[in-house]
Amino acid sequence: ATQLTLMQIDNYGPWTVTPEPRREMDLQTMQSRLFADLAQFVGARGGYVFFTRFDNMVAVTNGLDRTDHELLQESVGNRYPVTVSLGVGVDEVPAEALETATGLVQNAGSAQSSDRSEAFAGSFHDDAADDDVHVAHFDVNDATGKYTDRLNEFDTFINIEQGYASLMRYMREAHGGLSFFVGGDNVIATCPDLSAEEYRGAVDHVADEAEVQLKVGVGSGPTAHEAGIRAKHALEDCRYEGTLVEFA
Amino acid sequence: ATQLTLMQIDNYGPWTVTPEPRREMDLQTMQSRLFADLAQFVGARGGYVFFTRFDNMVAVTNGLDRTDHELLQESVGNRYPVTVSLGVGVDEVPAEALETATGLVQNAGSAQSSDRSEAFAGSFHDDAADDDVHVAHFDVNDATGKYTDRLNEFDTFINIEQGYASLMRYMREAHGGLSFFVGGDNVIATCPDLSAEEYRGAVDHVADEAEVQLKVGVGSGPTAHEAGIRAKHALEDCRYEGTLVEFA
Ligand SMILES: Nc1nc2c(ncn2[C@@H]2O[C@H](COP(=O)(O)OP(=O)(O)OP(=O)(O)O)[C@@H](O)[C@H]2O)c(=O)[nH]1
Ligand SMILES: Nc1nc2c(ncn2[C@@H]2O[C@H](COP(=O)(O)OP(=O)(O)OP(=O)(O)O)[C@@H](O)[C@H]2O)c(=O)[nH]1
Repeated sequence: ATQLTLMQIDNYGPWTVTPEPRREMDLQTMQSRLFADLAQFVGARGGYVFFTRFDNMVAVTNGLDRTDHELLQESVGNRYPVTVSLGVGVDEVPAEALETATGLVQNAGSAQSSDRSEAFAGSFHDDAADDDVHVAHFDVNDATGKYTDRLNEFDTFINIEQGYASLMRYMREAHGGLSFFVGGDNVIATCPDLSAEEYRGAVDHVADEAEVQLKVGVGSGPTAHEAGIRAKHALEDCRYEGTLVEFA
Repeated sequence: ATQLTLMQIDNYGPWTVTPEPRREMDLQTMQSRLFADLAQFVGARGGYVFFTRFDNMVAVTNGLDRTDHELLQESVGNRYPVTVSLGVGVDEVPAEALETATGLVQNAGSAQSSDRSEAFAGSFHDDAADDDVHVAHFDVNDATGKYTDRLNEFDTFINIEQGYASLMRYMREAHGGLSFFVGGDNVIATCPDLSAEEYRGAVDHVADEAEVQLKVGVGSGPTAHEAGIRAKHALEDCRYEGTLVEFA
């Protein structure tokens, strides 16, 4: 099963405008440094974290236990002007795991409550299995030749973004999978155990709805990193074989 | 007029998989630290930079001259395993400025050419005026009460993302404005000189198309920071007055 952690900055909206609106580039720097730190912390333990909305980040944390989460929370509190609350959920379906994780944080208080600080709730996945985590790494076919080298960067971005919007909705609704844009033309999804046919369905849907042509490599493993690196190798196989879906 | 800089990482796609696919969390860390550094560099000189696709970042650089750009490029090359190419364009309409900036980088070689490294081309805006830059800071009404405190984080994200997708397309097509998601429920746009009526048109469009209710504060200034901080104060006015559009 997939273990997901919601990381939510406490009372961040009010902080951004207290006592006066803060310089936007200082907020951007703080948010992206915090994300980079979390990526190192979680990544060094085999997990994945996605920036999502920056004030709310979603992580696949199979392999990280309660102590790891407590350390992360304490270390952020010590080093940043903000604190984070954490909720953890476990389920075969990532959307269900996140539903649990989010509910736990919400129960501890509003995202804009000045009373809530460093809330922490959830139960952990103990008996790790080799196929706990399924990662799908999607990429736009020849994004460089079709968009990046031809259109202005914003029009390229609109195309990539439309493909992503279509994919994220489809994977969420059809399968309870959660898809995250990771830069360039790449999207990484945490999914239940899906067939090649089901992935082909997703690729076809995005081609129809957004006219963006994707390919996808899929991997499984006990952690997000292990599943994800297999997915990347499978994506390389797509590149060399010219195929749309490959499993590691 | 608005001065825009396209910052494109050189030959980044091939680098991510050479000699083997690299750990995703290391890529995420590198990308977000690079962005944070650029935000500090550009922000300290009055500019704004947006993460966009991370391998391609768009910056509003009124106030930064050729020497500033050269220093930025050199400093990135010294400190990161990648280099960046830069293109600079100037126009009253941001999309036109970016068209110029992107074209200059494209002319120097493909985003995936191993021959192109640290290309730099463009002309700069010399005679700064008080109303060179127009910044619109959009925010979703009561995102915390309507989404963050109620839905699971991914479903909140889908709603915010749909609103953003609708806004980015509308501003681009109707006005040549460029809108960037900056985290939470906030979007910052660099725009030509638009009227309250035109901003109300954008807010109405997003409410109709994506069922997301926005408000917007607008500011002008000689730099992105000065325009942007005025826009934030105008957005605070929206909050206190309950209005949809305010100018600083
Ligand atoms: N986060 C992340 N981004 C990647 C990875 N590989 C490539 N990218 C991004 O994707 C962009 C485009 O690279 P590619 O996907 O290799 O290029 P392409 O033109 O689509 O070519 P093909 O994928 O071979 O069709 C790069 O600039 C990176 O930003 C990866 O493993 N992780
Ligand atoms: N980048 C950036 N993000 C902000 C700023 N202000 C707020 N945010 C983000 O927006 C999120 C929600 O905060 P608000 O917009 O204040 O909350 P809200 O519930 O929509 O309330 P109202 O805007 O008052 O309707 C925060 O968690 C931040 O991530 C800002 O100035 N810059």
